Amino acid sequence: MRDHGTGSPFLDACHGRPVPFTPVWFMRQAGRSLPEYRAARGDGDILEAIRCPELAAELTLQPVRRHGVDAAILFSDIMAPLALMGVGVEIVPGRGPVVAEPFRTKADLARLRPLEAEVDVAPVLEAVRLARRELDPMGVPLIGFAGAPFTVASYLVEGGPSRTYAATKVLMHSEPALWEALVGALADISLGFLRAQVTAGAQAVQLFDSWAGTLGTEDYRTHAMPASARVLGGLADLGIPRIHFGVGTGELLADMAAAGADVVGVDWRVQLGVARSRVGPGVALQGNLDPALCLAPLPVVEQRVRKVLDDAAGLGGHVFNLGHGVLPETDPGTLTRIVEWVHAYQHRG
Amino acid sequence: MRDHGTGSPFLDACHGRPVPFTPVWFMRQAGRSLPEYRAARGDGDILEAIRCPELAAELTLQPVRRHGVDAAILFSDIMAPLALMGVGVEIVPGRGPVVAEPFRTKADLARLRPLEAEVDVAPVLEAVRLARRELDPMGVPLIGFAGAPFTVASYLVEGGPSRTYAATKVLMHSEPALWEALVGALADISLGFLRAQVTAGAQAVQLFDSWAGTLGTEDYRTHAMPASARVLGGLADLGIPRIHFGVGTGELLADMAAAGADVVGVDWRVQLGVARSRVGPGVALQGNLDPALCLAPLPVVEQRVRKVLDDAAGLGGHVFNLGHGVLPETDPGTLTRIVEWVHAYQHRG
Repeated sequence: MRDHGTGSPFLDACHGRPVPFTPVWFMRQAGRSLPEYRAARGDGDILEAIRCPELAAELTLQPVRRHGVDAAILFSDIMAPLALMGVGVEIVPGRGPVVAEPFRTKADLARLRPLEAEVDVAPVLEAVRLARRELDPMGVPLIGFAGAPFTVASYLVEGGPSRTYAATKVLMHSEPALWEALVGALADISLGFLRAQVTAGAQAVQLFDSWAGTLGTEDYRTHAMPASARVLGGLADLGIPRIHFGVGTGELLADMAAAGADVVGVDWRVQLGVARSRVGPGVALQGNLDPALCLAPLPVVEQRVRKVLDDAAGLGGHVFNLGHGVLPETDPGTLTRIVEWVHAYQHRG
Repeated sequence: MRDHGTGSPFLDACHGRPVPFTPVWFMRQAGRSLPEYRAARGDGDILEAIRCPELAAELTLQPVRRHGVDAAILFSDIMAPLALMGVGVEIVPGRGPVVAEPFRTKADLARLRPLEAEVDVAPVLEAVRLARRELDPMGVPLIGFAGAPFTVASYLVEGGPSRTYAATKVLMHSEPALWEALVGALADISLGFLRAQVTAGAQAVQLFDSWAGTLGTEDYRTHAMPASARVLGGLADLGIPRIHFGVGTGELLADMAAAGADVVGVDWRVQLGVARSRVGPGVALQGNLDPALCLAPLPVVEQRVRKVLDDAAGLGGHVFNLGHGVLPETDPGTLTRIVEWVHAYQHRG
């Protein structure tokens, strides 16, 4: 073992080291696509599961057992730390995070206090420890995660999911100092949350800036990237792979890498060769099968999996994944087949 | 006058000819941002307005009178021809098009018959004639429009707006022949609708492929572009500018141009210089201010308007627009100021 990782194709690929096969995991692999997940979760809400370390660890492990993926990702939610801190976030099934009193004024800043990780997110850290205990014998590393400041802020300001992010953009432009204080506070929370997850045992982290793709490059650089760079830079001493993920972020890939990523997530809109040319060398790429394609007939899925791997061949570090989370209606058998295809792939160059 | 256009900065810019100033119009300029629109529309539903030529013409003219934009766009909806043909489309306020019985099987193809424009969309064509009568003395051209086959098909298949377009993608991959027949039939309807609008007086057209950005380049080229090319190519003999528009289509810009566009819409995610390098010369660009930015303080809006114009300088034909439709909560005064700024802009090279 070198660092946390030699022997793990996932960690090696993140670092751009040679791998025996392309490693693969799926965003939302711990989720509603699995019958055992639905059975374990029952009717409880997601925060209930996050508050129960045994359940969260079990949900984390299920897709590793079933699919043989090369990494586990902690079962959690990007709004979990704020919800656990009592900021007034609910996670509504089928809708996502809802903030009954959206953040709009300077007074709302007072609702955010510094994270005391060992207190505030204790159940999450316990879930990390429990999951590691079962993952270690399998040789499968655990990915911790947090929401990026822009995306978390967008939920706080909009009050929930949005199509236009108008309130968020208005706030950043009309009150730039307030905006900066907001994303700064969220950066500190995400950084503290991620460092605590790594201390508890996470061997890589993914920073989810799921909705950054709504920003043009100028707004991204001015109003989102600095706070994300604070999170990613604050993890540099830990030596673990830092994955930086967004959707519809084709124009932002170079900036997302420059923010301090070891791995950049690429969605299906951008061919991996194009992504490589934008990002430059020295950063691994993660992606990029369209999650909706997983619902297509198997021969089509196989052909597209092969296409992703062909595109990635010779480009340097690559972690196979979807371009966004597994859709709940996905047949888990398809995901298992994808893992098999990725592992068996041989490039005919 | 040469063709339909000399003397119109909008038409000239579309053709890449020299213009005295950058022309500007706004997608959804005829819409809820205007109090006179809300007054004229009342509580009626949008199809009611589309069925009433006098009202549709009035709504088309309102933003021209108020803002002094360089083009009018017909008040209509991309689902209008199907709704008027009785295909079972409703347009639900705040939600968008809803198809109670989504298209999923070969039997659903029978629900689409060829368009008989002078019968099926007679009120729309009458609105074109009425609008032209008032626009001509102002020297302002009228843009007709239609939905592109992929985007219209996505509503028919999903039954309404979607975030993932999973059902649409599954259909195109599991039943490619059925998909091709569906988008082929929709291409014929859109082409017939646009030709009829031009015959009635429209001096340019915009083909809205609003949701094409959900497709990767391979799927776009195989499953969307051929049908759009059939529409755009079928208009070539008319000599009018054909604008090809989508959102989040940064990776598709070259293909959208190659499909037969004279002008390609660019959203705020892609800098115009980058768009030009992807599209190549000989096609004009339209865009690309973020609609949410119109809600920002005026000095920020002015700076961003200037940035768009700076980006466009020296790149060839440019029509100023937003990257998507005007948001309903936009202050119409801001739009008027944008028109003034665009018209007064002088490049300091």
